[in-house]
Amino acid sequence: LFQLETEADALVNFQHYSAQLQPFYESSPHVLQTEVLQQLTDLIRNHPSWSVAHMAVELGIRECFRHSRVISCANSTEREQGCTPLHLACRKGDGELLVELVQYCHAQVDVTDNNGETAFHYAVQGDNPQVLQLLGKSTSTGLNQVNSQGLTPLHLACQLGKQEMVRVLLLCNARCNVLGPSGYPIHMAMKHSQKGCAEMIISMDCNQIHSKDPRYGASPLHWAKNAEMARMLLKRGCDVNSTSSAGNTALHVAVMRNRFECVMVLLTYGAHADARGEHGNTPLHLAMSKDNVEMIKALIVFGAEVDTPNDFGETPALVASKISKVATRKALLTLLRTVGAEYRFPLIPGVSMEQGPTASQHPVLSQERAQPPPINLSNLELQDIKHISRTRKPAFILSSLRDEKRSHDHLLCLDGGGVKGLIIIQLLIAIEKASGIATKDLFDWVAGTSTGGILALAILHSKSMAYMRGVYFRMKDEVFRGSRPYESGPLEEFLKREFGEHTKMTDIKKPKVMLTGTLSDRQPAELHLFRNYDAPETVWEPRFSQNTNLKPPTQPAEQLVWRAARSSGAAPTYFRPNGRFLDGGLLANNPTLDAMTEIHEYNQDLARKGQGNKVKKLSIVVSLGTGRSPQVPVTCVDVFRPSNPWELAKTVFGAKELGKMVVDCCTDPDGRAVDRARAWCEMVGIQYFRLNPQLGADIMLDEVSDAVLVNALWETEVYIYEHREEFQRLIQLLLQP
Amino acid sequence: LFQLETEADALVNFQHYSAQLQPFYESSPHVLQTEVLQQLTDLIRNHPSWSVAHMAVELGIRECFRHSRVISCANSTEREQGCTPLHLACRKGDGELLVELVQYCHAQVDVTDNNGETAFHYAVQGDNPQVLQLLGKSTSTGLNQVNSQGLTPLHLACQLGKQEMVRVLLLCNARCNVLGPSGYPIHMAMKHSQKGCAEMIISMDCNQIHSKDPRYGASPLHWAKNAEMARMLLKRGCDVNSTSSAGNTALHVAVMRNRFECVMVLLTYGAHADARGEHGNTPLHLAMSKDNVEMIKALIVFGAEVDTPNDFGETPALVASKISKVATRKALLTLLRTVGAEYRFPLIPGVSMEQGPTASQHPVLSQERAQPPPINLSNLELQDIKHISRTRKPAFILSSLRDEKRSHDHLLCLDGGGVKGLIIIQLLIAIEKASGIATKDLFDWVAGTSTGGILALAILHSKSMAYMRGVYFRMKDEVFRGSRPYESGPLEEFLKREFGEHTKMTDIKKPKVMLTGTLSDRQPAELHLFRNYDAPETVWEPRFSQNTNLKPPTQPAEQLVWRAARSSGAAPTYFRPNGRFLDGGLLANNPTLDAMTEIHEYNQDLARKGQGNKVKKLSIVVSLGTGRSPQVPVTCVDVFRPSNPWELAKTVFGAKELGKMVVDCCTDPDGRAVDRARAWCEMVGIQYFRLNPQLGADIMLDEVSDAVLVNALWETEVYIYEHREEFQRLIQLLLQP
Repeated sequence: LFQLETEADALVNFQHYSAQLQPFYESSPHVLQTEVLQQLTDLIRNHPSWSVAHMAVELGIRECFRHSRVISCANSTEREQGCTPLHLACRKGDGELLVELVQYCHAQVDVTDNNGETAFHYAVQGDNPQVLQLLGKSTSTGLNQVNSQGLTPLHLACQLGKQEMVRVLLLCNARCNVLGPSGYPIHMAMKHSQKGCAEMIISMDCNQIHSKDPRYGASPLHWAKNAEMARMLLKRGCDVNSTSSAGNTALHVAVMRNRFECVMVLLTYGAHADARGEHGNTPLHLAMSKDNVEMIKALIVFGAEVDTPNDFGETPALVASKISKVATRKALLTLLRTVGAEYRFPLIPGVSMEQGPTASQHPVLSQERAQPPPINLSNLELQDIKHISRTRKPAFILSSLRDEKRSHDHLLCLDGGGVKGLIIIQLLIAIEKASGIATKDLFDWVAGTSTGGILALAILHSKSMAYMRGVYFRMKDEVFRGSRPYESGPLEEFLKREFGEHTKMTDIKKPKVMLTGTLSDRQPAELHLFRNYDAPETVWEPRFSQNTNLKPPTQPAEQLVWRAARSSGAAPTYFRPNGRFLDGGLLANNPTLDAMTEIHEYNQDLARKGQGNKVKKLSIVVSLGTGRSPQVPVTCVDVFRPSNPWELAKTVFGAKELGKMVVDCCTDPDGRAVDRARAWCEMVGIQYFRLNPQLGADIMLDEVSDAVLVNALWETEVYIYEHREEFQRLIQLLLQP
Repeated sequence: LFQLETEADALVNFQHYSAQLQPFYESSPHVLQTEVLQQLTDLIRNHPSWSVAHMAVELGIRECFRHSRVISCANSTEREQGCTPLHLACRKGDGELLVELVQYCHAQVDVTDNNGETAFHYAVQGDNPQVLQLLGKSTSTGLNQVNSQGLTPLHLACQLGKQEMVRVLLLCNARCNVLGPSGYPIHMAMKHSQKGCAEMIISMDCNQIHSKDPRYGASPLHWAKNAEMARMLLKRGCDVNSTSSAGNTALHVAVMRNRFECVMVLLTYGAHADARGEHGNTPLHLAMSKDNVEMIKALIVFGAEVDTPNDFGETPALVASKISKVATRKALLTLLRTVGAEYRFPLIPGVSMEQGPTASQHPVLSQERAQPPPINLSNLELQDIKHISRTRKPAFILSSLRDEKRSHDHLLCLDGGGVKGLIIIQLLIAIEKASGIATKDLFDWVAGTSTGGILALAILHSKSMAYMRGVYFRMKDEVFRGSRPYESGPLEEFLKREFGEHTKMTDIKKPKVMLTGTLSDRQPAELHLFRNYDAPETVWEPRFSQNTNLKPPTQPAEQLVWRAARSSGAAPTYFRPNGRFLDGGLLANNPTLDAMTEIHEYNQDLARKGQGNKVKKLSIVVSLGTGRSPQVPVTCVDVFRPSNPWELAKTVFGAKELGKMVVDCCTDPDGRAVDRARAWCEMVGIQYFRLNPQLGADIMLDEVSDAVLVNALWETEVYIYEHREEFQRLIQLLLQP
């Protein structure tokens, strides 16, 4: 079995071994097989402090558990880790051994080893949840015992990512509120990004999602280290804006940790981008030191104010101006200046702004950081009041009196463009913010194509644009999954969820909404408007004699809202057509001209029906685009007569380029459509506003990259800043009675 | 050599043969070869009346022409046809024989055979023009001698289609004005549709194209039996409307002979469709008895008046009403009624119209045919005067005072649509006819896309629409030859021919004209307007920052007219792009909205430049279409995710359908484009007229079938008749000062 160097040693060993082996060969004949004997002697040699019971467990020789010698040392501990045979059995995950030990050998369950770990801890580290289940059958203090690191078995399971162990522990009534070094078990699971474990805890005890760790007062969300973990919690309804003891939100933490993906998830689930945390810092203050331009853009795009002062009176811009690395500082300041930030110095009572900041003041200011000066309202200047009012604008004022007060109608038109609808959202947020009134109440008519149609319905259904922004960011990954044409299921599910499965178009009457769709069961195809009011009758002869093979369109009162949205947004090759409808963008990617046509026909119809007094003249048309792609030179749009295979190949290529050119030409919402609408409006004396940011790159309507989209929204913010006077004029006109 | 039945015969024959053979074997040793001997004896046997000279010619044994016996019978005639050896030599086409005969044997050239035919007649029937040339060297009366059928050698050559013989005869100064049974040689060539011969005569003597045959007084064109012959004459400048002694034009003849293709060629070259011929009949009168609906439609479409009375006071409609075959009569009357014909009965002095016609009057009328009642103006009723005035409307009144008089501007917009531009032409002809004023003077602005652009330029250059109609019919076969994309050479040649190779856009200033083109050297492509005035400056910021890689468009003063037309009409896949321009139809197949935008910007620009007094308000917009195709149900526009090769094939099919749908949608000039323009105009108080006939079938923009196009124009005429009140209203508005 083994060899020793000296005979004396051999003798001593023989005695020791024979004593140790005795219970085994007395219990079972198998033990004398060379193989088992080898294992036993190896154990004796390697673990001199193990009792025969330890060895019996380790080798699983159950026959000897009836042997008195074994029974007598059932609760013995070995010297190395101080664990009992029971500990070993738990770690080994052998349920039968466990039962034998407890039932016949009266092994104690609550014994802890040198690290303070009970059999439960060991069972968690093993692979067999049944063992844990067996252990838990009897109530035991070991269930919630903390080990020397302060971890309960539940903590341990969370740390190790053993979801099933968590489940069993919770079924055995293990407590979720035992404090470990990183908070409660849920926090442990979050810290180690063990999604399954966290989900298990929350599903067994839904309150855990709000549980704050006593040390930082942080919710599980604060602990989320990646987008997946954050999304899991948010989908389960955690409070995205809950604050830690220091007053920081999860967003503050994510920014501090430079976790861009996490930041995006939090923002899209409604985290306040300008929440004031510790020392009054907003996430933007914190982001300034991270040298992550993407993240800074994301925060600003999601509403972080560049001029919000923290408790020391420092704005994010000022923070940026103090960064020691010159290149970074310059880059950040340039970035901020494009959206209109001034890196003014903090207001210090007695120091006049006219005096102007000098470089020598910097060190003084940084020394003063520790004692934030109390904000003295009387000392604030006009500019600052305006500034603060801008930042702290109250929620929307719902002016339900609008119909009685306004003598003219306002029309809002929203272009198509897939996920680029985010740009429209951003523009609408700016308008709402500046006017203090919800879009729904600013306009009497809202027309939309495709994504613009979905947003028109969102406006109708009083969904806030900030909410829709989050929805768009969240949905794109679900909707644009796989390859084109995409499955329409997720899109339809989303629409049903947002608008209800049975909601009809006429359920909400104001403002009047129209969505464009292309009736493609006929050639030439026809424009169809999905309306929340009855279609105006016209006196024109029908364009084509009624074809009885063609089913008339559904009436507004019968039209499901989600279907209308789906029909308007059935962009060919992106989604399959919805029944006989193709994307409205084919006929009116910019719906302005058709909306004006519709309003004219509506008013004509009213007049013909003797209701001329109800006719209100259109006074303002606001047309919002989904971003202009840069214009690029094109070299090959030729289709020529091929004379050999190589030329044929070129023809196909040319045809493809040409096809793109043709479709792009025809559906360009920003070319002649705008010139035409402007001329029309000017001729009639209608105020026309076309707002559409120039983008730095061509963005696909199924773009899914957060960074790309954030950048497009950033460009939108820059556009809004550059056109602030036009926005101002628009707001003034919109607010006129 | 041969066998005979009786010895006696043999002896007689031997003597005869030996006598006949003598000159031959005395002259040449070759004759005794069995082969030649056989031929000789065969000749002697088959042509007993032939002299040895005849036989020498036939076998080409020149050696014996020096033999006295041969010389002695050089002018002998044989009994069968009375022809001399010279005749035979000419028919055989052997020039050397001819020379021998004339020079050594003193054969006479003027001898005629039994049919009165000279050697020239025989030479024409032979294959060798050189023989004819040799004959013609000496002046001979035989050159213009008529044979017993009254044909000169030139007549004969024309009958036989021997173009080269014609050339040689004419070079020998053969006369073209010798009368044959069918007139002069040119008429003979026409009668037998010998295009080459007719061309030869005309190219040698250009006056022949106008030569009238003395019998009918008919020009060669009257004699044309098919389209090719007619086209040949017309291209060489013959008078399409020359009349025969009876007063009929070639069109009358073609109609009487039921030659539809000929009729089309004549009409497209400007034949008067309502020319009064024999008995005052117009071609339409004659067509009524031909049971050829196509031809009747063609005549009416090209301006034949359905209510023009002939010398018997019968209108074409009345002629139709008298056709004995009931089905034909009904069909014709129905046809005529759709364009507003009344088959009133002729005015007979003393018979009041109120009394009404009765069936019993018919025989009386037909008896009276021989003596057409003189038209008594005092007896004409108001209705008839109106009717006659309609038919006999004088040519256009050019009102050059229009600018001073009119206080408002009129805009004419012409859609794209390839050869379907014919429909626009037809509509314009109706407007010009009813108003008595040329289009050029009815409108201040003319906008056109593609084919509409070409027509806008034709208006600018004072080309009559009737002329353009002919041009379109003639050009389509040249331009749409082969397969798509078509060679652009013929189109460009045509444009240069019509508008001049060096004409610039600004060469003619009024009316203001704009053609749409698509600048496709950039993505997104831009609309470009080719103008004959300077582009208005706008205050809008440029849509894209100026890309220095993109060449600015040519200024109007530098822009060649033909290039502008070509650029506007570069329909993808039909023609290759013209440089960087694609068809204007991609962006504005119906140019109305863009024309109104342009006019607005033009007026704004004037006002900004302090020339507000020059601004004239738009008061009328007339938008003409190239015909509406019927709307048809479509089943498959889906593009789905293919899961196997069969589905992939379906996808490609679907994609093709979809592609067509997308392009058709976007370029449909008659859908929303019209609704939008109408609403715009109504809002501003502009009178808007959209005229676009519904067609019975989808007509391709490269359709070349005359019948299909005539039918489309017929539908246009029906449309004009059905909408006569709208036309009337339009004319009244256009004529208001």
